Amino acid sequence: MSETALVKCDSPGGFITYLPEQAIFRQQILDKIRRVFERFGFDPIQTPAVEYLDVLTGGDEDSDMTLYEARRIRGAGVPNDPIRTALRFDHTVPLARVVVANWNELPRPFKRYVCGNVWRGEKPQAGRYREFMQFDADIVGSSSMLADAEIVALMCATILELGIDRFKVRFNNRKILNGLPQFAGFDPELIDQVLRQIDKLEKIGEDGVREWLGNEQKKAMTQAEAQEYQRWVWSLSDEEKKAEKNKIYGLGLPPEAVDRILEFVAFEGTSDELLDQVEGISEDNAVMSEGLAELREIIGYLRTMGVDESNWEVDLSVARGLAYYSGPVFETTLLDCAEMGSVFSGGRFDFLVQRFQEDSIPATGASIGVDRFFAALKELGMAPSTKTTVQALVTVMDPALMSQYLQLVGALRDAGMNAALYMAEEMSFKAQIAFAAKQEIPFVLIMGQREADAGEVTIKDMKNRKQKTVSFKSLVSGERQALFDAFDGQCLGRLLT
Amino acid sequence: MSETALVKCDSPGGFITYLPEQAIFRQQILDKIRRVFERFGFDPIQTPAVEYLDVLTGGDEDSDMTLYEARRIRGAGVPNDPIRTALRFDHTVPLARVVVANWNELPRPFKRYVCGNVWRGEKPQAGRYREFMQFDADIVGSSSMLADAEIVALMCATILELGIDRFKVRFNNRKILNGLPQFAGFDPELIDQVLRQIDKLEKIGEDGVREWLGNEQKKAMTQAEAQEYQRWVWSLSDEEKKAEKNKIYGLGLPPEAVDRILEFVAFEGTSDELLDQVEGISEDNAVMSEGLAELREIIGYLRTMGVDESNWEVDLSVARGLAYYSGPVFETTLLDCAEMGSVFSGGRFDFLVQRFQEDSIPATGASIGVDRFFAALKELGMAPSTKTTVQALVTVMDPALMSQYLQLVGALRDAGMNAALYMAEEMSFKAQIAFAAKQEIPFVLIMGQREADAGEVTIKDMKNRKQKTVSFKSLVSGERQALFDAFDGQCLGRLLT
Repeated sequence: MSETALVKCDSPGGFITYLPEQAIFRQQILDKIRRVFERFGFDPIQTPAVEYLDVLTGGDEDSDMTLYEARRIRGAGVPNDPIRTALRFDHTVPLARVVVANWNELPRPFKRYVCGNVWRGEKPQAGRYREFMQFDADIVGSSSMLADAEIVALMCATILELGIDRFKVRFNNRKILNGLPQFAGFDPELIDQVLRQIDKLEKIGEDGVREWLGNEQKKAMTQAEAQEYQRWVWSLSDEEKKAEKNKIYGLGLPPEAVDRILEFVAFEGTSDELLDQVEGISEDNAVMSEGLAELREIIGYLRTMGVDESNWEVDLSVARGLAYYSGPVFETTLLDCAEMGSVFSGGRFDFLVQRFQEDSIPATGASIGVDRFFAALKELGMAPSTKTTVQALVTVMDPALMSQYLQLVGALRDAGMNAALYMAEEMSFKAQIAFAAKQEIPFVLIMGQREADAGEVTIKDMKNRKQKTVSFKSLVSGERQALFDAFDGQCLGRLLT
Repeated sequence: MSETALVKCDSPGGFITYLPEQAIFRQQILDKIRRVFERFGFDPIQTPAVEYLDVLTGGDEDSDMTLYEARRIRGAGVPNDPIRTALRFDHTVPLARVVVANWNELPRPFKRYVCGNVWRGEKPQAGRYREFMQFDADIVGSSSMLADAEIVALMCATILELGIDRFKVRFNNRKILNGLPQFAGFDPELIDQVLRQIDKLEKIGEDGVREWLGNEQKKAMTQAEAQEYQRWVWSLSDEEKKAEKNKIYGLGLPPEAVDRILEFVAFEGTSDELLDQVEGISEDNAVMSEGLAELREIIGYLRTMGVDESNWEVDLSVARGLAYYSGPVFETTLLDCAEMGSVFSGGRFDFLVQRFQEDSIPATGASIGVDRFFAALKELGMAPSTKTTVQALVTVMDPALMSQYLQLVGALRDAGMNAALYMAEEMSFKAQIAFAAKQEIPFVLIMGQREADAGEVTIKDMKNRKQKTVSFKSLVSGERQALFDAFDGQCLGRLLT
């Protein structure tokens, strides 16, 4: 069989394989998220992993996002499809496509959830993968802050359902940030770069940010200027050369602008206090005032809904990386695992559909990073390792009784139990019990020739180390009471409904 | 916002987008499959969509499988990863990788299920997509036919659970087919090609197959011979030229071999009768005898397990396309939708791991094509279109009462109901009722100023066109009996547990 050389048994970095010990619990997480999303009135859709590259990038050929191109190949050869396709990097862009393509048929607003993997070519690190599952909920077609408040409420309800109460949904409004150029006095074109510096505040401190914002901008040079510059650098002393090479270029903002940005960034207090401070600087600043009013509206709804105030707060430093956000933006920190970064994020993206059509469609939503959340739960010791979903193992004491064993396992399955027949090669009684113990299977059924003659089955409760004897006939005939008694009313799932 | 040109709102052919009307029911299918697979004692794993290309092809550079290469790109640029990666085309090869990588830690046998998309670059057609979901169950580490019988039993139980009883799991054994060269007298190297011809029997008839098997083989020619051949073709008359061009080349089997193959193919009768006929030709044919004994063992187990005989049969024409099958092979036809092809297929693949290591590991399993199955259910009119999972809509009669509406919708959600607040722009009563009717939401809650003053809520049962008045207080305080009465005990999910 193995004429060709052996292939290395390996898989690419940044891609996770979950064995049952993790996959069983992860599936429970998914079920819980789905249940909460449906309780909030969201309906499922499914979209393909593969989209046209232009759809994903919005036709932006200079996009610096690192994606996975998905290209059809035959074996080792490479026949190109005429149009380039790639793996989705989120669920929001595919949602925009679906909405534009089906706008006339969809309910308004369209509240949909979606669950599936997304792919990014980023450098893998703790809680950051190249393939990861996102579970998104979005409300499309409503510009009301009721929708944004509902998203925040959904985020809180979901995380609570997943067993965590020490978390904070932090939110802000892009419109407040978009009012910064007017307030601080700098070119609105620079806003994204300014926000990127503000984002680094915790990492590099106030002085670092001040440097990045205020230092002179690196100039684009003509070839002649570049040569001139090189000559100049070569003329410097070694020390001067080093300093020139390590020079930190910045955005070249005037000192007063830097001061005002840092004044804004330094606001602190409760959500209400923060918004009062924003109000103090937003007079005559239309876009900032609008953002402020929206956040106040959201907060009002959250209080009416009774969403626990310890689980949310206004945070003026939240900006979100993606360019498509246009209004309120949300992030979520697990307080005991903050280093994992935001596990549930989103925001309003009213203009995303404009890559396909002139008209905008208001939309808001959020996305929980299932794999990162799972990694956080593991970090917190809150991800139980479940070996198996099997509830009962039917052992094989005597191959001549196989027919009875098959009837037993069939009867348990018909009763809604997860049941397995022992199938390994090592057939000793000890090996079979050891298998059940290692797999943490709660019940083991034993029937040797002696029990068979007596028409009986021994049921061993592996957890409580007790055992009882039950009539074979009553089990295989599916008598509910017999099954209930045999397994102490545990493990019976559908049986009792 | 739209300085760049608009992007075409489109998605690639062969990739499906499911809106809620389909996605809700499809999710129910997935839940049912999972439930059956777990009842049979299978545990979940999850593997990445992306694997090394060599892992998928087994290092075979001449593989004629059409795959999707997954290549990291930055925007429009193309930085290559050093090793090529591609999207998985099935779950069986990734399983082999997982098994080899974790063999010492895994239970034996390892019974696992997996659910996820796979990608193939094939031509899209009815029930055949480029991205489709497969739900697989496999038993790794047992060479016992008990394992294969359990797979067939699982296949039958799953399809029954999905509401279909007119189906047939058809199975055969590659070992019987591998005994054909000895029986019919032809080169064992040709077996795959012979099987491919047999596969076409229904399509091209016995005469067609006879031609393909018996006609002379197309010879590989040196360049000189090819030139000589071209000269000869040019010397022919137009008619002769045409005949030469349309000439059907075959495998060049001797007539007696063709006769014996067709004799074998013509076997008919019940499963037992077919196996008796195989027995009649398998004397001294070791591999065929082994295959025969295995099928008899499987059938014995199926009968003991009580798997309905109308749902399975031996079919000597079943071969399965993939090269890795080594023993029993399974296919499933839905009798009322046979043109859709097999919806649930598999087989034993004892040697697949040998692309990674010298030692083989016995394994058997099957895979249900969820999207094809779903397409078949639609074809059969058995796929109900469910508009929404929302069970109750809280209408907005008076914006001044928003606080009460938010309390109501929150109380219903706390009670485990799927509830939505009306959020569309058109606020007339008529529009809100029309929204609920179009979305087929069963209950609508109405509270205007008059009801609010009386402390009451009207609950409209949209299906039975009845309505009742309920106390606002009892609803928002979550009184179980009040909620039960309000919604006639329907829609209460977790409430009653």
